[in-house]
Amino acid sequence: MGIHFGVDYYPEHWAKERWEIDVQLMKEMGVQVVRMAEFSWFKMEPVLGEFHFEWLEEAVALLDRYGIKTILGTPTAAPPAWIVRTNPELQPIDREGRRRFFGGRHHDCQSNPVYHAHIKRFVTAFAKRFADNPGVIGWQIDNELGNSHNDLCMCTSCRQFYQKWLQRKYGTIEALNDAWGTAFWSQGYNNFTQIGTPLITAAGENPSAMLDWKCYCSDLIVNFADWQADIIRKICPKHFITHNFMCFDNKVDYYDLAGLLDFVSNDIYPAGHWQKQPHQPESELAACHDVIRGYKKKPFWMMEQQSGMAGWEIMGRALEPGQMSAWAMQSVAHGADTVVFFRWRTCAMGTEQFWHGILGHSGKPGRIYKEAKKLTQTFTKYMEDFEGSMPSPEVAIVHSFRQNYALDIQPNHPQLHYVEQLQKYYKALYDKKIPVDFVQDMDDFSQYKLVIAPLQYLMTPELEQHYIEYVANGGHLVLTMRTGVKDANNLCMTEMELPGRLGELCGIEVPEYDCLLETTGGVLYGKKEYAIEKWCDIITLNGACQIAEYSTGFYKQTPAITENKYGNGIAWYIGTEPGEELMEDIMTYITGVCEIETLGTAGDGVEMMTRENEDKVWLFVINHTNDEQVYHLHGRYTLLEGEREEMLKPYEVQLFVGNKRR
Amino acid sequence: MGIHFGVDYYPEHWAKERWEIDVQLMKEMGVQVVRMAEFSWFKMEPVLGEFHFEWLEEAVALLDRYGIKTILGTPTAAPPAWIVRTNPELQPIDREGRRRFFGGRHHDCQSNPVYHAHIKRFVTAFAKRFADNPGVIGWQIDNELGNSHNDLCMCTSCRQFYQKWLQRKYGTIEALNDAWGTAFWSQGYNNFTQIGTPLITAAGENPSAMLDWKCYCSDLIVNFADWQADIIRKICPKHFITHNFMCFDNKVDYYDLAGLLDFVSNDIYPAGHWQKQPHQPESELAACHDVIRGYKKKPFWMMEQQSGMAGWEIMGRALEPGQMSAWAMQSVAHGADTVVFFRWRTCAMGTEQFWHGILGHSGKPGRIYKEAKKLTQTFTKYMEDFEGSMPSPEVAIVHSFRQNYALDIQPNHPQLHYVEQLQKYYKALYDKKIPVDFVQDMDDFSQYKLVIAPLQYLMTPELEQHYIEYVANGGHLVLTMRTGVKDANNLCMTEMELPGRLGELCGIEVPEYDCLLETTGGVLYGKKEYAIEKWCDIITLNGACQIAEYSTGFYKQTPAITENKYGNGIAWYIGTEPGEELMEDIMTYITGVCEIETLGTAGDGVEMMTRENEDKVWLFVINHTNDEQVYHLHGRYTLLEGEREEMLKPYEVQLFVGNKRR
Amino acid sequence: MGIHFGVDYYPEHWAKERWEIDVQLMKEMGVQVVRMAEFSWFKMEPVLGEFHFEWLEEAVALLDRYGIKTILGTPTAAPPAWIVRTNPELQPIDREGRRRFFGGRHHDCQSNPVYHAHIKRFVTAFAKRFADNPGVIGWQIDNELGNSHNDLCMCTSCRQFYQKWLQRKYGTIEALNDAWGTAFWSQGYNNFTQIGTPLITAAGENPSAMLDWKCYCSDLIVNFADWQADIIRKICPKHFITHNFMCFDNKVDYYDLAGLLDFVSNDIYPAGHWQKQPHQPESELAACHDVIRGYKKKPFWMMEQQSGMAGWEIMGRALEPGQMSAWAMQSVAHGADTVVFFRWRTCAMGTEQFWHGILGHSGKPGRIYKEAKKLTQTFTKYMEDFEGSMPSPEVAIVHSFRQNYALDIQPNHPQLHYVEQLQKYYKALYDKKIPVDFVQDMDDFSQYKLVIAPLQYLMTPELEQHYIEYVANGGHLVLTMRTGVKDANNLCMTEMELPGRLGELCGIEVPEYDCLLETTGGVLYGKKEYAIEKWCDIITLNGACQIAEYSTGFYKQTPAITENKYGNGIAWYIGTEPGEELMEDIMTYITGVCEIETLGTAGDGVEMMTRENEDKVWLFVINHTNDEQVYHLHGRYTLLEGEREEMLKPYEVQLFVGNKRR
Repeated sequence: MGIHFGVDYYPEHWAKERWEIDVQLMKEMGVQVVRMAEFSWFKMEPVLGEFHFEWLEEAVALLDRYGIKTILGTPTAAPPAWIVRTNPELQPIDREGRRRFFGGRHHDCQSNPVYHAHIKRFVTAFAKRFADNPGVIGWQIDNELGNSHNDLCMCTSCRQFYQKWLQRKYGTIEALNDAWGTAFWSQGYNNFTQIGTPLITAAGENPSAMLDWKCYCSDLIVNFADWQADIIRKICPKHFITHNFMCFDNKVDYYDLAGLLDFVSNDIYPAGHWQKQPHQPESELAACHDVIRGYKKKPFWMMEQQSGMAGWEIMGRALEPGQMSAWAMQSVAHGADTVVFFRWRTCAMGTEQFWHGILGHSGKPGRIYKEAKKLTQTFTKYMEDFEGSMPSPEVAIVHSFRQNYALDIQPNHPQLHYVEQLQKYYKALYDKKIPVDFVQDMDDFSQYKLVIAPLQYLMTPELEQHYIEYVANGGHLVLTMRTGVKDANNLCMTEMELPGRLGELCGIEVPEYDCLLETTGGVLYGKKEYAIEKWCDIITLNGACQIAEYSTGFYKQTPAITENKYGNGIAWYIGTEPGEELMEDIMTYITGVCEIETLGTAGDGVEMMTRENEDKVWLFVINHTNDEQVYHLHGRYTLLEGEREEMLKPYEVQLFVGNKRR
Repeated sequence: MGIHFGVDYYPEHWAKERWEIDVQLMKEMGVQVVRMAEFSWFKMEPVLGEFHFEWLEEAVALLDRYGIKTILGTPTAAPPAWIVRTNPELQPIDREGRRRFFGGRHHDCQSNPVYHAHIKRFVTAFAKRFADNPGVIGWQIDNELGNSHNDLCMCTSCRQFYQKWLQRKYGTIEALNDAWGTAFWSQGYNNFTQIGTPLITAAGENPSAMLDWKCYCSDLIVNFADWQADIIRKICPKHFITHNFMCFDNKVDYYDLAGLLDFVSNDIYPAGHWQKQPHQPESELAACHDVIRGYKKKPFWMMEQQSGMAGWEIMGRALEPGQMSAWAMQSVAHGADTVVFFRWRTCAMGTEQFWHGILGHSGKPGRIYKEAKKLTQTFTKYMEDFEGSMPSPEVAIVHSFRQNYALDIQPNHPQLHYVEQLQKYYKALYDKKIPVDFVQDMDDFSQYKLVIAPLQYLMTPELEQHYIEYVANGGHLVLTMRTGVKDANNLCMTEMELPGRLGELCGIEVPEYDCLLETTGGVLYGKKEYAIEKWCDIITLNGACQIAEYSTGFYKQTPAITENKYGNGIAWYIGTEPGEELMEDIMTYITGVCEIETLGTAGDGVEMMTRENEDKVWLFVINHTNDEQVYHLHGRYTLLEGEREEMLKPYEVQLFVGNKRR
Repeated sequence: MGIHFGVDYYPEHWAKERWEIDVQLMKEMGVQVVRMAEFSWFKMEPVLGEFHFEWLEEAVALLDRYGIKTILGTPTAAPPAWIVRTNPELQPIDREGRRRFFGGRHHDCQSNPVYHAHIKRFVTAFAKRFADNPGVIGWQIDNELGNSHNDLCMCTSCRQFYQKWLQRKYGTIEALNDAWGTAFWSQGYNNFTQIGTPLITAAGENPSAMLDWKCYCSDLIVNFADWQADIIRKICPKHFITHNFMCFDNKVDYYDLAGLLDFVSNDIYPAGHWQKQPHQPESELAACHDVIRGYKKKPFWMMEQQSGMAGWEIMGRALEPGQMSAWAMQSVAHGADTVVFFRWRTCAMGTEQFWHGILGHSGKPGRIYKEAKKLTQTFTKYMEDFEGSMPSPEVAIVHSFRQNYALDIQPNHPQLHYVEQLQKYYKALYDKKIPVDFVQDMDDFSQYKLVIAPLQYLMTPELEQHYIEYVANGGHLVLTMRTGVKDANNLCMTEMELPGRLGELCGIEVPEYDCLLETTGGVLYGKKEYAIEKWCDIITLNGACQIAEYSTGFYKQTPAITENKYGNGIAWYIGTEPGEELMEDIMTYITGVCEIETLGTAGDGVEMMTRENEDKVWLFVINHTNDEQVYHLHGRYTLLEGEREEMLKPYEVQLFVGNKRR
């Protein structure tokens, strides 16, 4: 597309006299695209049916004159007061039964039919007006769908939608009663109209019902987006449609949402004010990019790449010189074809006054502007080559929203979080400079030498079979504690000891387990004792060989980690959460057995990542620290950008190219 | 009754084909009784008036064929959806005015007349159907009454009931205004209809009103149980009626509730997932059994004895080998005639999926099953002898729900908890192997050499007199800080300096005090300085002699602990909360003065306890640790069970018998 | 007035037989005034229109017979049940939409017209009855206005009042849309009726709207008080009207509230149970008195001076011998003409049972009574001389409720609190024995050698000009981080880099900044490295000279503190929060440059403060510790009270007199 750097722009926040100055500065910085209008319903329709798109057309035209293209956002994440005051019932209800009122954003119930009618009218008019505008290239549906909508909405409209969703899924109420295990605590229903949204109870909730609720909420959002996309697609067939995701966020199944988009976009704020650390660790950011790439198995856009201090009531840390550029190129290294910075100029008003952009409040180009300009000047020339290229990892980590939901509902151990667990496995590989794909559980694994599937808590016969066949056919599989615990309805498996049929694959049985509540444990691996956390499966060998044993608990000297040859492959079972050191050593062993290639060697804080097309491999070496770093590459590459090979300045990004091996 | 071991059983959770396998396994394990049906209303009445008891009759008959008797629970802790959806107003309202909805359990308002009508219809039909069933021996009313009902319910129905309760108590509104001290903050009422349930205020609440509210809530529950018991008793005159208590839980006055039952039952989960420690300390468990025995001054049943990991969203610790048996026999040692394990098989569905039982989800007998079987094989033969026998302690600790309520309302110090305070005194005696009774404050103390009455915060002239007479007649009494502060209405005493008339008994006055907020203090006892906590009464001697003095605060070198000979007895006053070390040393001194017998000597973690009948004394020695332990007994006993005298294996329970001394 | 010591008295809490004993004891203690009736509506009007003032008249008369005068409080902080039950809608609604019910105090919506009608009826009758009572000298309006009213009220009545308030302020909805920056997140309003109270949203709130809401709430309270005061003033022209403030409390703009009163009163509880420390540091108390004096630039009354342990459900620390007296005389030293102790006798009932007074529950005079008596005996003879005299500081700290509100809404850093920041600057001066005035930002500063204006976050052109002129004319000004960030509407400044026009005054620019979230930083001042906290402005010199530089962060070695000669004066800019040590050293430097006088030298815990009239200067030296202390005075004074010059016993208060220098 030839569009690789951009900014999120809000001309409606500023006097019209300023616009051309802004656009000139953008041009000079290397901006090729802007996103606009995703929170401007009131400006575009200040009263029912009275549309005012002129100001936006003017902005689009001005940008287009400077060669800058526009992506338009539908502003449905913030319906204006005149809608909400007329129909207060479209303000959502939370789990405690409290209404959440106008005054922020996402004060909307996405199932509400009156709200749907408003959206249909507005989005139709909006799309028609810009369908043939030469400056416009595509659309963003709503904004960060699912964000702020945590636990929402419990209203009457949602209850009816939920009941219909359940009826479609189960057909009969008897089927639902079975699937939810309503025999427990006398929770049987006589018909679907008796079912409610999960408002607070006096004590406890039904985990099977909660899993359906979370899936329903995801479906509601996917349908909401699909329905909006349909309106636009019919009117604007030449435009692409995307949406800005939020990494691993779990309010909506992003695999489903990705299905209806032309490509996926992502928002990322490594130095957000919700961080205890100055910024999110690099390995976590890398994993975010990899999972985003995985949602559609395609390159993606960064729709909001952090370019300044984040802040609402409080602020995060300032960005160090070079840090923004390193993060932007990390996005590219992992598959971003385009990087749009949030945002052009720091806003003077509203909740996000302190969410800083390329320009500060004053509008004067400063340190960040200069850094962004240097970035585009250095890398724009390569971006067209990168376009469409993909990393080609030998290792995959299995990722599933349903597992995430189920462990959200019942974490088993208070500190056990599904995504954190994935991140721990990911980090061991990242530190070894081994690229990783995130995949869905039923994906074809045949291209991977090693598949790591942590916390396969919910299990189906099909998925059991899928894992068994992968290993039988020569695959290497890592399974972990809490595998096979539940069926697809979040009911416990009862036919066999854990991990069900996968016990055969792993050559083990897990008849008991221990939760390390308020304590930690130990494992003996080789001659060394290592720390473990949260959980201990108590394992009986059934053909497998033990490669590590517990050194604590009444199950001391019983297997903690096992290895089993099965068919042409190997299945490992890790019955606990390894501490960081054990994780590193066990992954060295496993990736060694699997003969996984590493891109090079370097200290922590130095990242290596590749993108490939049919001919070439681009290698990115990124220094995420404020110190000089040395590194060594394992392959043969030619330096394209960078001062000195094997040596990195603070936050330096070096680019290499090599030939694709077939 | 010949019934000593049992399990809680939920046949409705499992396919009928499995039932007989379960019952055979139970039989083999030594099960003599099951509790069933206490959460199965929907299964028994799926629509209004359509009763389905066949499945339960079938289960009862099957069990009976194997000689296993049944206790039936009334399922009124979980009214089905068809009731709740028709009458949503019977879902309770919490203090914040939020309704608590269907979806867990206890989603019911116990004062609601519509709910009462449903219960009456159902329980009548239920009782009639099983009145003459040969497999049924008794009933459990509801389940853990008061549990989950914390702060519930604030609805209109409860408000009316509360107003009537107050009218009965006070007669006139003037009497209530006086008793509540409504002159403060202009809270006077003109009539009872102006009084509300204690919904959240803008600031503050009336402690006298709150005390009545807590008493009312207890009475509501007691009446609710009494009314249900009446229905059953009339229809099933041959059956016993019990209820499963929760140790020291304070939602209902268990002394009152015990009054309407044939015997008391208890539920105990030492390794629950709400524990910070791997399990509740043994001394706390021992105290729980002793207070349960005290509620009716009779042996009791364990209706839910933990037999596996506990868990809802998160789990507790796994039980170590032998631990379940040690806990079960601890129950017996303190007065349980029958031990019913919760539960037969770990449930596959609902909130309590991870609340483990004798069998795991797989239903295969494993480690725990084998341990349970060995337990019944070893001890069933003695259980018949134990039946009806009681411990015979020389020391009593006074326990009162009203004191508990009053200190819940105003803890005085943020970390001061009534039951914790009792537990601290109890532990000092437990560690010395001195058996203890819990008694009510107006009980006859004459059989006790020593009575410890911590936190006698609410005081009446009758109770003052009772304590004075006990000491005058030769009794030994320990009183503590915060004694005599309030009258029965939770109004402060104003006639005299603290501790009121008990000051005469103790030979002291307490004109001032200090709250050790965010700090601790010290005491000099003998030549040693000890840590103290939370509170310092500033004491003036008035005949007493000082046995410890403060070493901190502006009241340094004034009395902290005093001793006063009065009549033929002695009254000690402990003006602070002794740290563990001071508690131990001061109790050594006091029990020494009182010539209290100790059962033996052993390290921490070794428990000694006796039960006696007219002829015999059984002594239990229990190792609550995973290490070998040695001990020495002070009396003459014959070893009945146990490998080697004076030596305990991990978690071993040894049983001795001796002759009763007269 | 000849009235200098008093107590808060609640005869309605006690039997009439006790009254005369109380009054005799008061007389003996030196009591000259009582406050009564501020929570006694029900006693005075038990049913609508039926007034019972006889009891109060009797009490007033009894006191008057003993020469003790009465201040009457209007009881509008606790409307009786008969009002609330008839009009439940006057119970306030909180931000979560929950009603706050009767049962505590302040269960009222201050905008409710029905409630207004009740107040008008009652207060009129009350004032008429006592207008000519010879024992009555004045009135207190309501009680601690704003206390407990945090976030209240969000009801329909308040919404209408708020809409009218906004309409008056903005005239047109377009003006409001601009002022609130509603272009952000599509929050534009078409008319004032669309605006709501700030009930909880799904995510985020508008900081400009929140600032108006807080100002509105303050105005509502001020109007409420004004309207009550008007009723009384018309009927009782001879009586003064006051109100009991709460130091720095920010629910109402005390400068506005002071405007309608004859004098300001204050309540202070240094050893309240909400303190983590045994009591609030002396410097904080001193600052409280200074700000209270500043609200009306006049001496004030202490209406509630702590005289015993504070407590609701939990208690604070006991007062050490002498501590109450030291605190009382600290009040006097800072400008109190009269000290009324809360309260006469510890109440036996209600929420504040454990809020102790001069007498304990028993009513027997004890340690505290004796101390109070000694205090009046020592100091009453000087109080008449002190009356009307004022401190005369050379240093002022700027204090503003609007800055306080704005930083409450967006603290910028999670631990940044406006008043705490003022207190940190204050403490450095207090420790140097330098008296301080608190002033409003637009006050005339010409009498001060040094003005410290921390956190001038909201800025107007007028205020910029005011600061510039002060310095130009020879003033010394300290400005700090986060100055000039916002305009009066809480919108960010966009014309210039920070700190706007004040950058010229300070000779600097602040184009960037860093929030020290979860970390701290360092500064090099002289040759020493010091700790700094929370924030770092990144400063460009523009004429100023650097007097300290950062030693941490990517802005290491750039200016942290600057000094700029401007006109005839000097402006310092402190771009961070100095740790205690740096604050001390930098203030030593700045006060040195300004040639500020210090009263003397002494260790921490020894306070020095002066009050002056036309001729004389009284110097108070107060030992706030339990140890002996030495000190040295810098001026020439004669000892009036105190055992030994230059030496203080624990908690001793010494009084000196000197001649006024002109």
